[in-house]
Amino acid sequence: MGKKYYVGIDLGGTNIKGGIVLESGEIIHKEMIPTGAGREPSEIIKDIAGLVNKMLDTANINISDVNSIGIGTPGTCNAKEGIVICASNIDFYNVHMREELKKYFSVPVFVENDANCAALGEYNVLTEDVENMVFITLGTGVGGGLIFDRKLYVGKNGTAAEVGHMIIEVDGEECGCGTRGCWEKYASVTALINQTKEYIEKNPDSELAKICENGVSGRSAFDLSKKGDAGAKSVVDRWINYVGTGIISIINILQPELIIIGGAISKEGEYLLGPIREYQKNNTYSQIDGATRIVAASLGNDAGLIGSAFLGKEVD
Amino acid sequence: MGKKYYVGIDLGGTNIKGGIVLESGEIIHKEMIPTGAGREPSEIIKDIAGLVNKMLDTANINISDVNSIGIGTPGTCNAKEGIVICASNIDFYNVHMREELKKYFSVPVFVENDANCAALGEYNVLTEDVENMVFITLGTGVGGGLIFDRKLYVGKNGTAAEVGHMIIEVDGEECGCGTRGCWEKYASVTALINQTKEYIEKNPDSELAKICENGVSGRSAFDLSKKGDAGAKSVVDRWINYVGTGIISIINILQPELIIIGGAISKEGEYLLGPIREYQKNNTYSQIDGATRIVAASLGNDAGLIGSAFLGKEVD
Repeated sequence: MGKKYYVGIDLGGTNIKGGIVLESGEIIHKEMIPTGAGREPSEIIKDIAGLVNKMLDTANINISDVNSIGIGTPGTCNAKEGIVICASNIDFYNVHMREELKKYFSVPVFVENDANCAALGEYNVLTEDVENMVFITLGTGVGGGLIFDRKLYVGKNGTAAEVGHMIIEVDGEECGCGTRGCWEKYASVTALINQTKEYIEKNPDSELAKICENGVSGRSAFDLSKKGDAGAKSVVDRWINYVGTGIISIINILQPELIIIGGAISKEGEYLLGPIREYQKNNTYSQIDGATRIVAASLGNDAGLIGSAFLGKEVD
Repeated sequence: MGKKYYVGIDLGGTNIKGGIVLESGEIIHKEMIPTGAGREPSEIIKDIAGLVNKMLDTANINISDVNSIGIGTPGTCNAKEGIVICASNIDFYNVHMREELKKYFSVPVFVENDANCAALGEYNVLTEDVENMVFITLGTGVGGGLIFDRKLYVGKNGTAAEVGHMIIEVDGEECGCGTRGCWEKYASVTALINQTKEYIEKNPDSELAKICENGVSGRSAFDLSKKGDAGAKSVVDRWINYVGTGIISIINILQPELIIIGGAISKEGEYLLGPIREYQKNNTYSQIDGATRIVAASLGNDAGLIGSAFLGKEVD
């Protein structure tokens, strides 16, 4: 059994968010500082240490009551050794995060990829016992996190769960990852925006074109579709078809009890989940003993922060 | 620690194969009887019991030296309860295999899907310690088995690892599973044969058409390609491109240490694996800490038998 408080750090390209988290998942204190990406890693880590100390001071918590400090970082990690292997947007390459932070604190320090942390955050606040879960974030790209046998699964080299880079279209759209036809080229919010623009170009007099005069967002087609516009609905349907395609593959490979959909778009709730579940129903191979449940993420932007705090909970 | 002998049964649509297996994976005795599919499950199970007793008699082994009996069956299982849920080709629906066999033997009985057993068989004879492995069979369809954290992973309902039913082509070829564009419609040996036929139709005067006058097999294009025929090579290349597509997706999602390719076609060895590895090299997203190794299966037709025997080894 660990101690009462878990400290989480969500290290991003723009900001560093810190939080003091209870075992329940409740954040009792939260602070944010700019990352200042591009500086020496040791400088940034010094700022992280300062942020932790400031939070503890403000919340009037003694470090001896802290179970662990967990850092969620972009890019790839060696979680076992506590090293950030490669996080290009903050210029971290082979940064010994644990070793560095050990200069400031004597509590255990954990390091993990930020998407994995978000998966862990969502998993830890579930009210039921779930053995296997897949977390999918639909955002600029499509990311993910895997929980197998109630533990985070990161694969051979810590970089598993890149669900956005499964191929759904042979020789499809070129992807930055080096291959073609990746799921995220079709099912990310970026892709939804592109598909919306495509529709507008073909239908310049449409209602969708009108409401997008000042710019297209991931919500444009959803907003208009809700009002019954057939054109907007066709854009949403097409995109959900792509989202569903990847979800079917994940179900057929992994048959998780639960799939959690995250990213801002998951706030569309049943407008997103209803059609995805319908797609699932019509396309799933095996439905023995009930289908995989698909739900929206519950933590929003705090998932990564809470998950990073809980990195140390896993190994209690 | 279990006892010395493991009994495995590979229950197929045509034959029931039985084997007595040592901890090393060596089969010391093997027998086969016809399944007689379509009969009452209790009749078939009675034959399985008879087969086990005959093997033990012939090999002069006492049942008290048997650790467990494992049954590999087609279709879906509830491994926990020892029930065959649905195996249409032998007409087994909700058959309480364990309960039935307990009438004949007092040793522990295990039941698992045959592809999962094959994965377990291949895994258990590895000479090195592997934590995560994906087994892929390229045959009439494309099947698979997953080993995570050194254990068989079967998902929520025992039907995970249907890798052949991940979608690699949105709105692609219709698949018997109820959706479209499944990997096995492009990367199975059946698909290779279809792709060979397609080439022959378009190129009736080709060398490949000539050697296939008496029929096309999965080896036709490979055999001629090895002799330097460009047309045959184009067929092989196209097929391997499809095989590689699914493998890249599996790597990006799961980052296993090892992928084992099974099915008769895996005997093509480096003619198959060389180009797949080349495809992997050119299309893999993350290569941190070395790439997933891809190797051919080593057990051939006995993988399922050995794996079923080892179902009881897992829980020693």
